[in-house]
Amino acid sequence: MQEPQSAPVAYLAAVGTALPGDPVDNGKLAKTLGVNDEWIDVFIGTRTRHFARDLDSGEVRWSLADLCAQAAERALTASRVAADEIEFVVMGTATPDHLMPATVNLVADLLGLDQLPTYQLQSGCAGAVQALDMGRTLIMGGGYRAGLVIGGDVCSKHLDLDRDLSDAPPSDLVNYVLFGDGAGAAVLTSEPRGQRLAVRRVLNRFTGLGREPGQVIDWFGLADRHEDRQAVREDYKAIEEFVPLIAEEILWELLEDLDWPSDRVDFLLPPQLSGHMTRRIAEKLRLPGAVEVSCVAETGNNGNALPFLQMEGLMDRMTEGQRALAVAVESSKWIKSGFALEKV
Amino acid sequence: MQEPQSAPVAYLAAVGTALPGDPVDNGKLAKTLGVNDEWIDVFIGTRTRHFARDLDSGEVRWSLADLCAQAAERALTASRVAADEIEFVVMGTATPDHLMPATVNLVADLLGLDQLPTYQLQSGCAGAVQALDMGRTLIMGGGYRAGLVIGGDVCSKHLDLDRDLSDAPPSDLVNYVLFGDGAGAAVLTSEPRGQRLAVRRVLNRFTGLGREPGQVIDWFGLADRHEDRQAVREDYKAIEEFVPLIAEEILWELLEDLDWPSDRVDFLLPPQLSGHMTRRIAEKLRLPGAVEVSCVAETGNNGNALPFLQMEGLMDRMTEGQRALAVAVESSKWIKSGFALEKV
Repeated sequence: MQEPQSAPVAYLAAVGTALPGDPVDNGKLAKTLGVNDEWIDVFIGTRTRHFARDLDSGEVRWSLADLCAQAAERALTASRVAADEIEFVVMGTATPDHLMPATVNLVADLLGLDQLPTYQLQSGCAGAVQALDMGRTLIMGGGYRAGLVIGGDVCSKHLDLDRDLSDAPPSDLVNYVLFGDGAGAAVLTSEPRGQRLAVRRVLNRFTGLGREPGQVIDWFGLADRHEDRQAVREDYKAIEEFVPLIAEEILWELLEDLDWPSDRVDFLLPPQLSGHMTRRIAEKLRLPGAVEVSCVAETGNNGNALPFLQMEGLMDRMTEGQRALAVAVESSKWIKSGFALEKV
Repeated sequence: MQEPQSAPVAYLAAVGTALPGDPVDNGKLAKTLGVNDEWIDVFIGTRTRHFARDLDSGEVRWSLADLCAQAAERALTASRVAADEIEFVVMGTATPDHLMPATVNLVADLLGLDQLPTYQLQSGCAGAVQALDMGRTLIMGGGYRAGLVIGGDVCSKHLDLDRDLSDAPPSDLVNYVLFGDGAGAAVLTSEPRGQRLAVRRVLNRFTGLGREPGQVIDWFGLADRHEDRQAVREDYKAIEEFVPLIAEEILWELLEDLDWPSDRVDFLLPPQLSGHMTRRIAEKLRLPGAVEVSCVAETGNNGNALPFLQMEGLMDRMTEGQRALAVAVESSKWIKSGFALEKV
């Protein structure tokens, strides 16, 4: 079913992103951690990532709020939507700077925004899609004309540089080489502006009933911070088995729901887990004629920033009438997510 | 301006709450912490609170997910809305069980819910209102017919029972005696059901531009967990000065926006900071003819649970045509929030 011209829809006017500092390659990372860099190349396939924390000094150089504000400023500039037109901010992250205040409010402050509703979603790999989902609902149902949708993560708050990793098992090591830090933002409008990308669908659905979490990331409180345990735990077998299957389900559900023929998709944004996983999944999802837009091999898995980094790669390439589909799977407690863009 | 009969509106069908274990009184708390209990009575005015952690053994007996699922089950039972009618879940918390997965998804799992969108807002004292705001937007703009709105906090993750507090300054001690744990939930519907409380307005607005945070609650990562610092910091002077003023602004803005005469409000739900603060604020907000509904002196400040605990106190007291106004101020980075209910 083609959406009628008059149906409410939200538009992406522009995207901006921010990655902290210089890319850190596997050689540098391996040397810092005291591990073998070939292992990273062979098993992870991620070549570089960015960290908000300086690897040599340990100094925290950017907060999540800093990165998100920088990304949002870039999106605003590119969109030519003025800051005082922004009527809401929705942000997704798994790694807020604090429990309170919500980082979205520190970002609003840095952007000079005030007297508007702000929302911060606690979310992982599906977070940017959840934020987009919510932004779209606010535009379509809340009567808003323009808002900011932001996603970002500073995973390096769990990067313990004082630890000796020479004897660490791969299940532990992987958490040091998979992740990165970064942020992205999009300006969402009720009328086509800037890049004029209609958000035709957003899929955001919990699908984890009765399934063990595939990924758990903990925080420590005053009461439990000295306990000797890892902060990140993953069930790699479950992730390797189910993420590609779920990604296929999302892709076909979106196509069917949109009534888009599979050969009429111009760009595909597949899930960004690691260089290798993304390559394997993209091969399974291959649509005839769709160009893959990925970033994880260069940026590392920086969670809520990823879909924005992918969208940024789309921005100057889409021409009128072209279509893009994005697929994201959150393995934490299993969320299906994705979205469809069409340039009008 | 009276809302026309046909205007979209969301309804509260029922509320449920959950408090962990027996109430802990000031005598018991003071003995555990090695401090003077008179100080708690005189300066805080909170008489009891509930903790998810056993004070004697330190054992964690309830997770946030446990408490939220229990509250949601009670709300569902009271509403007579079946679990399979629930089309979304929105939850607010400042203290999620993990960074990932979002606790809302563990709650959905406990409730037997699947294949629906779930959202978790990172929020403090205004969190339940933000969740209600978002649930109402989903009902009014997203085409949903029924959803769960949940709020809860387990503040005791920062309750370090091994610490010797006999020499701790009041600014530190207060964090041990102010807070509590708990959860609440409401069933939101597009048509009047159950208690038939129309949600006439929700106010949710960031107002922190250029203002220092009044309250900061940190989490610890692997990289910084052994640093010697407090997790909770408060600017009590700013809170004491500004929260009562902002509460008044919220009240009058809601009344004006609703065109409700101040003598036509039957119940007032004031901000719940501590026994003393709430009493002082409620005195300032006193509306002729409005009955105050508060809970903090018995439950402690359990953050996102508070407005649900207050609403529960309303449920069987409101009769057709009666009105209630709730006011909540988040001092973390300053959020104005409140809502208006009318029994139809």
